[in-house]
Amino acid sequence: MTKIAVVGATGLVGETMLNELEKRQLELDITLLASASSVGKKMGFLGKDLIVKELTPDSFRGIDVALFAVESDVSKKYAPHAKTAGCLVIDNSSAFRMEPNVPLIVPEVNPEDIKQHQGIIANPNCSTIQSVVPLLALKPFGLKRVIYTTYQSVSGSGKAGIEDLERGQRGEPNLFYPLPIANNVIPQIDSFLDDGYTGEEMKMIHETKKILHLPDLQVTATTVRVPLQSGHSVAIIVQTERPFEISHVKQALAATPGLIFVDAPDFPTPLQASGREDILVGRVRRDYSAENSIHIWCVADNIRKGAAGNAVQILDTILEHTDLV
Amino acid sequence: MTKIAVVGATGLVGETMLNELEKRQLELDITLLASASSVGKKMGFLGKDLIVKELTPDSFRGIDVALFAVESDVSKKYAPHAKTAGCLVIDNSSAFRMEPNVPLIVPEVNPEDIKQHQGIIANPNCSTIQSVVPLLALKPFGLKRVIYTTYQSVSGSGKAGIEDLERGQRGEPNLFYPLPIANNVIPQIDSFLDDGYTGEEMKMIHETKKILHLPDLQVTATTVRVPLQSGHSVAIIVQTERPFEISHVKQALAATPGLIFVDAPDFPTPLQASGREDILVGRVRRDYSAENSIHIWCVADNIRKGAAGNAVQILDTILEHTDLV
Repeated sequence: MTKIAVVGATGLVGETMLNELEKRQLELDITLLASASSVGKKMGFLGKDLIVKELTPDSFRGIDVALFAVESDVSKKYAPHAKTAGCLVIDNSSAFRMEPNVPLIVPEVNPEDIKQHQGIIANPNCSTIQSVVPLLALKPFGLKRVIYTTYQSVSGSGKAGIEDLERGQRGEPNLFYPLPIANNVIPQIDSFLDDGYTGEEMKMIHETKKILHLPDLQVTATTVRVPLQSGHSVAIIVQTERPFEISHVKQALAATPGLIFVDAPDFPTPLQASGREDILVGRVRRDYSAENSIHIWCVADNIRKGAAGNAVQILDTILEHTDLV
Repeated sequence: MTKIAVVGATGLVGETMLNELEKRQLELDITLLASASSVGKKMGFLGKDLIVKELTPDSFRGIDVALFAVESDVSKKYAPHAKTAGCLVIDNSSAFRMEPNVPLIVPEVNPEDIKQHQGIIANPNCSTIQSVVPLLALKPFGLKRVIYTTYQSVSGSGKAGIEDLERGQRGEPNLFYPLPIANNVIPQIDSFLDDGYTGEEMKMIHETKKILHLPDLQVTATTVRVPLQSGHSVAIIVQTERPFEISHVKQALAATPGLIFVDAPDFPTPLQASGREDILVGRVRRDYSAENSIHIWCVADNIRKGAAGNAVQILDTILEHTDLV
């Protein structure tokens, strides 16, 4: 029986990972790990209660795979201990994503990269995950330039983000975000770099190139927090090397695993994506302002597909294709 | 004393027009016009009550300027009557914007176009108004391509939009928008055309070219409704013919009348723009994915500056520069 640990089990992503594991109906021995303040908390799993244990350097003895759903600094501290104990780490933070020997995996896009792991596999940024799947559908036309503009829900910041939105909607002041998010739009996610980009924007840019194996792809991004609980939307413009028919792009999107293509006049919204593991794409139309350019609107549940779902899908891939590990 | 009519006085834009006129402290004789259902309603103006009268074909006798804040079909029906009565029309709807003999005016950008009017001056779309002012600052570098991605508040749909958001936030079903807007993002504003664009997107594309006198400018747009009461944000990417220094762009934006430039690490949000007549711009940074390309984040109160404010600014311009009329 595979022994799985969920690190950061009481957070929004950790809880959803546990729920996703439960849905798998697999024979799994689950250990829940969290900081000292959550120790002793009970969490239901397939009808029985699991007790949260304290995360320590010794937590990983005998564990096969650890799903990390914690902040980068916690991942940086504990992932090496897991690795030393022979436990494979699937890490949701940005701590290791850009390290050359750490595969950055979206199972629909680059599962074979798992083979190159050296004890740690990274789960991409939530907005990146949902965006690279439609890009895969366009890869046969030769990807040249990608422009991302995002509409990201507060659940991307975990429970603290949801609570801050609810607080604002009750007329109370913000405690978590630097500015009120209720009745507002905040064009800052993660901290600013010297050239005016945010960390979130650079994650989308760098991670897209790595996952698609296209180091020279031109990518730019504007990432924005919007006042809704769940679901990220990304307006994507893709410019390709070769000409395409819109109908062929629609066919390619509809045929891509993990994607649901919604044709006009219908279109997907984050509310429709909520609770689903699919990525929904729509509003596919030619961008007349440049040669071989197309608009795509891409929506997903940022926790269910983005953070937790993709991490558990990586686990699925490992368990099903033992040749990859 | 100039005789002004506000047509659609009881709507969100009409009310704000009246409020803007009040702030001017000008000697004005105001007539309020609306549909039969609003007749007799009292609206305060400089300490006295004005009574709403019914809009009829005969309403415009003796009126100098009529500010129209009604739907396109109402403008199409009544503007010709105003014109016949010798009343100058400033129309907020999209009814006449693209007609060759109707100037489409943003006073900071193309006030001299007013001269060409033949009885009707059009007020642009709210998202267009706030976007063309920063574009004016970049015009000396040679505008080549513009990409708009919008975050538009529900007040862009008037009181009905605000009520639908409030309804949704109370857990009640949507009555105005085709989908729930509370806790959601709707990538459709106005109706769809055959090629998958919406009317709102085409307005931004066509109006930008007309206002800037750049018929060959490449423009594309994605327009999206987000769940906040007030304030539109537009993520703009501008590609220029000639190279620029980021510092020069920032200086040009800061020096443009009507614009407030906010430098990093600060940035403007719609909540900050609320109630203001300025357009706030920030998040100015180089777009590395194309040559001579730049990101700009642009925020404004879509009613105060966008719809009502710009229309009253057109009136200001006419009253101050009688040579234009």
